[in-house]
Amino acid sequence: MDLMKEILERATIIDEYLMKYLEDGKPEKLIRAVRHYPEAGGKRLRPVLAMLVADAISGKEKESIPFGCCLEIIHNFTLIHDDVMDEDPMRRGRPAVHVLYDVPTAIIAGDAMFARGFEVLAEVEVAPEKTRRLLSLVAKTVWIIAEGQQMDIDFENSDSVTVDEYLEMIEKKTAILFACAAQGAAMIAEGSEEQEKDMFEYARLLGLGFQIWDDVLGITADEKKLGKPVGSDIRNGKRTLVILHALENADEEDKRIIFSTLGRENATNEEVAGIIEALERTGSIEFAKNKAMDYARRAKKCLESLPDSESKELLKDLVDYSVKRDL
Amino acid sequence: MDLMKEILERATIIDEYLMKYLEDGKPEKLIRAVRHYPEAGGKRLRPVLAMLVADAISGKEKESIPFGCCLEIIHNFTLIHDDVMDEDPMRRGRPAVHVLYDVPTAIIAGDAMFARGFEVLAEVEVAPEKTRRLLSLVAKTVWIIAEGQQMDIDFENSDSVTVDEYLEMIEKKTAILFACAAQGAAMIAEGSEEQEKDMFEYARLLGLGFQIWDDVLGITADEKKLGKPVGSDIRNGKRTLVILHALENADEEDKRIIFSTLGRENATNEEVAGIIEALERTGSIEFAKNKAMDYARRAKKCLESLPDSESKELLKDLVDYSVKRDL
Repeated sequence: MDLMKEILERATIIDEYLMKYLEDGKPEKLIRAVRHYPEAGGKRLRPVLAMLVADAISGKEKESIPFGCCLEIIHNFTLIHDDVMDEDPMRRGRPAVHVLYDVPTAIIAGDAMFARGFEVLAEVEVAPEKTRRLLSLVAKTVWIIAEGQQMDIDFENSDSVTVDEYLEMIEKKTAILFACAAQGAAMIAEGSEEQEKDMFEYARLLGLGFQIWDDVLGITADEKKLGKPVGSDIRNGKRTLVILHALENADEEDKRIIFSTLGRENATNEEVAGIIEALERTGSIEFAKNKAMDYARRAKKCLESLPDSESKELLKDLVDYSVKRDL
Repeated sequence: MDLMKEILERATIIDEYLMKYLEDGKPEKLIRAVRHYPEAGGKRLRPVLAMLVADAISGKEKESIPFGCCLEIIHNFTLIHDDVMDEDPMRRGRPAVHVLYDVPTAIIAGDAMFARGFEVLAEVEVAPEKTRRLLSLVAKTVWIIAEGQQMDIDFENSDSVTVDEYLEMIEKKTAILFACAAQGAAMIAEGSEEQEKDMFEYARLLGLGFQIWDDVLGITADEKKLGKPVGSDIRNGKRTLVILHALENADEEDKRIIFSTLGRENATNEEVAGIIEALERTGSIEFAKNKAMDYARRAKKCLESLPDSESKELLKDLVDYSVKRDL
């Protein structure tokens, strides 16, 4: 099976539902703002993950679609607000919502999507006594995402973020929504409590691996793959796992090299190459790679409770993809 | 019965639950931002309304408390985001969340409260098959509030808002959350479908009357009652029902008087007195008063399907209060 082809097929189904869920409402400007990011496309990883898990457990792929769309809508709401907060002008190659419209419209559009996400959640066909558990799962997840976003913002003004704090932040900001997708899908598919737990853990580890691999690629991938100049993460001063490990572990000389270049927008290519060498000497790139690999290994183990199926194989492939992709 | 005393008694109970619901979470800054407005107190009208309705239908006052808290949390989340959008520096005599902290923290705190509101909703004890309906009701309500807020913001840049558009806006921005409180409470109290409808309509009309009476008081009340100088709504150029009616109905001379003073921060007291006279001549203050009274009369009629009880009397008193209070 070709993982990308399988993802794309499911994403196409998701897209149809998704855009229908985002059709109604007034005023027109609000709806246009709400549809702006979803219209730009994307792999729809969270709903696809839900479909694969639900199918792997009991073949209830279709029943998981509204739930997946709920999470995709919530994911897009967080992107709108994140872009306002970070003052990012672009997203997926298009102007950010707050740039295309204005900050108030972006704040309201995010709030409106949040509401729509829960409205879609109310459409999920699940045993009545499970509705409250599912609602609680999603609501708690969004709270945790907010915690992660707050940590991320606080980190920008801090010089002493530890590796552990960073891991907590990306777990909350990114991995938890994957975990919610997988656990919720297990609930909908009437999986056992153990399966719910396994799927939560699988997707949490998958999300962590994904994010850390992104950090590595941001430093090591070439310009063609990155779609942005080599070293832009370094020039932007992004505190990724690689950088944080180095700041904790580098010797004085390498620390000097890192601090003298990190976050300097006009750093030369030689300086960027110099910092990458320092990161390699400190073993920080290796550390991050190994960390991601370790998460991937543990994620796969969580799949053992599932019966064999094509979807189970795809869930494994997804793990491989998360830490082998070159972007 | 003394309505204010009865409201206060219930608000005290609500406060205890509310602050417990807003206790947990990290980082500390986020939790402090989340608790900032609720800590400033307030009448807790939405949860009190839910308690009165639930009690009037079947004595299930206590069961309605988590639901009321959910709405109070959602109400406070909208206040945080509104203050960011309107750049209001103060709320309830305290600095706004975005002033005390910063805009990103205010956006996240609002999002986090939104999530917590739905988490509390998951705790509402209601027949399992009703959970989805209740979730759908609350989620749709928040979407409508977002529509109302978007209309409000769009109106600020428009010179041609009609009375009807204004009424639609306040219905969405304010009245709908009252309506949701009353209908949801009827659901929780196992009222009939007709009672649900009646309670929704009762509270919608109550909310409209409340808001319009506020508009009237903003123009006619004296400084002591208002807590701000007479005429500040006029000097701020606030487009209330009174003003919009006048702009549609005043003769040329009065229109000239209104336009020459409305929105001028340095307008003299004589000019403010002049505009009020023009509003009286046009019958605009009378129009708004009558409108509010009409809503109040219709709201009371919606209570007829309820059995007689103390809570029913209080629901009537609340209507009288909404259009008789001098602030």
